[in-house]
Amino acid sequence: MKASWVPVPPGSDFTLANLPYGVFAPAGTPQAWRVGVAIGKHVLDLAGALGAEVFTAPSLNAFMAGGPSVWADTREQVTELLSEPRSARAVRAHLHPIADVRLRLPIEVADYADFYASEHHARNLGRLFRPDGPSLPANWKHLPVGYHGRAGTVIVSGTPVVRPTGQRRTAPDAAPSFGPSLRLDVEVEIGFVVGVPSALGTPVAVGDFAQHVFGVVLLNDWSARDIQSWEYVPLGPFLGKSFATSISPWVVPLSALDGARVSTPIQEPPPLPNLAESEPWGLDLRLQLELNGQIVSRPPYAQMYWSPAQMLAHMTSNGASLRTGDLFASGTVSGPDPGTSGSLIELTRAGTEPLTLPDGTSRSYLLDGDTVRITGAACSPDGARLGLGEVIGRIAPPIASVPPK
Amino acid sequence: MKASWVPVPPGSDFTLANLPYGVFAPAGTPQAWRVGVAIGKHVLDLAGALGAEVFTAPSLNAFMAGGPSVWADTREQVTELLSEPRSARAVRAHLHPIADVRLRLPIEVADYADFYASEHHARNLGRLFRPDGPSLPANWKHLPVGYHGRAGTVIVSGTPVVRPTGQRRTAPDAAPSFGPSLRLDVEVEIGFVVGVPSALGTPVAVGDFAQHVFGVVLLNDWSARDIQSWEYVPLGPFLGKSFATSISPWVVPLSALDGARVSTPIQEPPPLPNLAESEPWGLDLRLQLELNGQIVSRPPYAQMYWSPAQMLAHMTSNGASLRTGDLFASGTVSGPDPGTSGSLIELTRAGTEPLTLPDGTSRSYLLDGDTVRITGAACSPDGARLGLGEVIGRIAPPIASVPPK
Repeated sequence: MKASWVPVPPGSDFTLANLPYGVFAPAGTPQAWRVGVAIGKHVLDLAGALGAEVFTAPSLNAFMAGGPSVWADTREQVTELLSEPRSARAVRAHLHPIADVRLRLPIEVADYADFYASEHHARNLGRLFRPDGPSLPANWKHLPVGYHGRAGTVIVSGTPVVRPTGQRRTAPDAAPSFGPSLRLDVEVEIGFVVGVPSALGTPVAVGDFAQHVFGVVLLNDWSARDIQSWEYVPLGPFLGKSFATSISPWVVPLSALDGARVSTPIQEPPPLPNLAESEPWGLDLRLQLELNGQIVSRPPYAQMYWSPAQMLAHMTSNGASLRTGDLFASGTVSGPDPGTSGSLIELTRAGTEPLTLPDGTSRSYLLDGDTVRITGAACSPDGARLGLGEVIGRIAPPIASVPPK
Repeated sequence: MKASWVPVPPGSDFTLANLPYGVFAPAGTPQAWRVGVAIGKHVLDLAGALGAEVFTAPSLNAFMAGGPSVWADTREQVTELLSEPRSARAVRAHLHPIADVRLRLPIEVADYADFYASEHHARNLGRLFRPDGPSLPANWKHLPVGYHGRAGTVIVSGTPVVRPTGQRRTAPDAAPSFGPSLRLDVEVEIGFVVGVPSALGTPVAVGDFAQHVFGVVLLNDWSARDIQSWEYVPLGPFLGKSFATSISPWVVPLSALDGARVSTPIQEPPPLPNLAESEPWGLDLRLQLELNGQIVSRPPYAQMYWSPAQMLAHMTSNGASLRTGDLFASGTVSGPDPGTSGSLIELTRAGTEPLTLPDGTSRSYLLDGDTVRITGAACSPDGARLGLGEVIGRIAPPIASVPPK
């Protein structure tokens, strides 16, 4: 295993085996966006170090559009620069402490779709909302259920999340009223970022996943449960989700996750041929949800029923095309055990069993001022840890609604 | 009433009172996209005639971002150029026959959302699918129900529509199978195009509609009913819609529609304050659906329950921001009378009462090779007709699905 001449503190997310991509502006030049790679506590300016125009950009999109051979070449060059001691002298000028730079949304999001791929999550919600019926919808084991979300409100980690207002009912049969959401929740998810587009009318095969998907981010699909439960029949979630979706600033390349690939749980009934996998695209990612600095859940991504390759194949099975910058997310990651659910609605049984936190406070849903942080790491058979960074957000009080004119 | 020195044939959609915007490439320069305005059978090249850089662009977005005062100034200048005979000599060089140019998707679509704003349509579907329950969902009269669609598959009129493949059940309790949709349908809609963005966290008031919305298009929300009915519980339509959404190439500016503004039908219960209108934003648009050149329906837009100003206010009521290029559509336009529904599923009662066409053929849903054309016009109190152009699409056979690798 190579090491980097750049100091990488023990336990750092950003080792030489990781090399995630982000977009930053150096200190003192707040709009001079360029593509960088994180290593330890530093970011390497690729615009400076490699000199390619594609890196002098406010997003990764142009680079991502290059495809797997460009991604592999770049990764090889960066690995070389950061591991070869004789490169240090020339490269050092292009290293900036991460603490000194501004990070922005790393991708220009084209379409954003969200799935519902955790069986434990889907069953947990089914039991809460349909206690007398089957916990899974009839279609659930036949296809990865998904829907489109709002691309324009995908925000980078650290952006405050304003508590949304909306119509909700405060009692089951009450008339709706308009006001701040009273049931603001998180959803711990993994997001997949598309680099290479596909043609309209042509499905992408499960086996072509790595030809299109560039990398992964941590994602928090903030959810206003009260707004959502009132609006979602019959056309699905809309305003209950569209106010904000936070992603981590560092996109971990898919190729860095090779060691974390695992089979999905057994799928029964077997998927129809267009969703059948010939190689595993489950991922052993261990996630962690913190509320005000206190761990409240450890969702295991390896338990996800549908793989991201199956999600991608399904999403394009009707001929829908992909664009560079498309983002699709897994849906809430929840495991089978207590303390492994990726949302408060599950952890508190729809608010009926509030969580008591180590600091002595309790929560059913989020309060103004709460800070939510999701972290995670990929785990390899050799035990090496490959961190996914973090996605963080603090709840800001609602803005008073605009009176009609 | 001014007239244009450019010949405008009787009955033309594109009179001096209209002046819709599109993006075209002149004959012989297929990629030289620029913004134009349609007048009669010609398009005026604004890049040439007005010389502003914002018109040398492959979309209207930069122009639309300028806001209402820029839109008004430009409209005034174009009206002057096309009505003042002494301008003719200089301007004539910038006129191209529409028949000779290529037209492309006029906007770069940011987010695409679709509503469900026709009470007649919603009740028609409710009666078909929930014959024993209430025909409207509980929320329907309290808010304009909507959802996000796929922005990347919005296509311009004339683009072939490949019949989508997908999972569907051929009998109510059968196992799903994968194959071409057998219930391919149209939805006659009006789309609204956002020019001026809004800030994240700040709702847009109903009364600010015209500060943000630039204009309207005709829109066909192609729908695979069999795919949709199997997938849509619990997160709404996804692949049943995302394969294609067609829009007209000419965006009619909102200001051209002043004479067509009418009140929506009486709304009972009265909308909550953030959805209450102080001025009418219903529109008297008369639409027409043709199948292979034969009129099958005349949907009346004036009957829509929710106005587009209410849709916009609702869509941002949770703080979701707007971007230039956002497109939101009305949902299927259906009237109360026979022959006024905007979809085949309504016109044929879910395929049980096939339509017999004048050419002697019959249809439950669309067949390969069918051509669908939607046209429409705004009607003013003075009886003047202001045409919306057309959106047209022909069904191409399905591409064989990709085998798994």
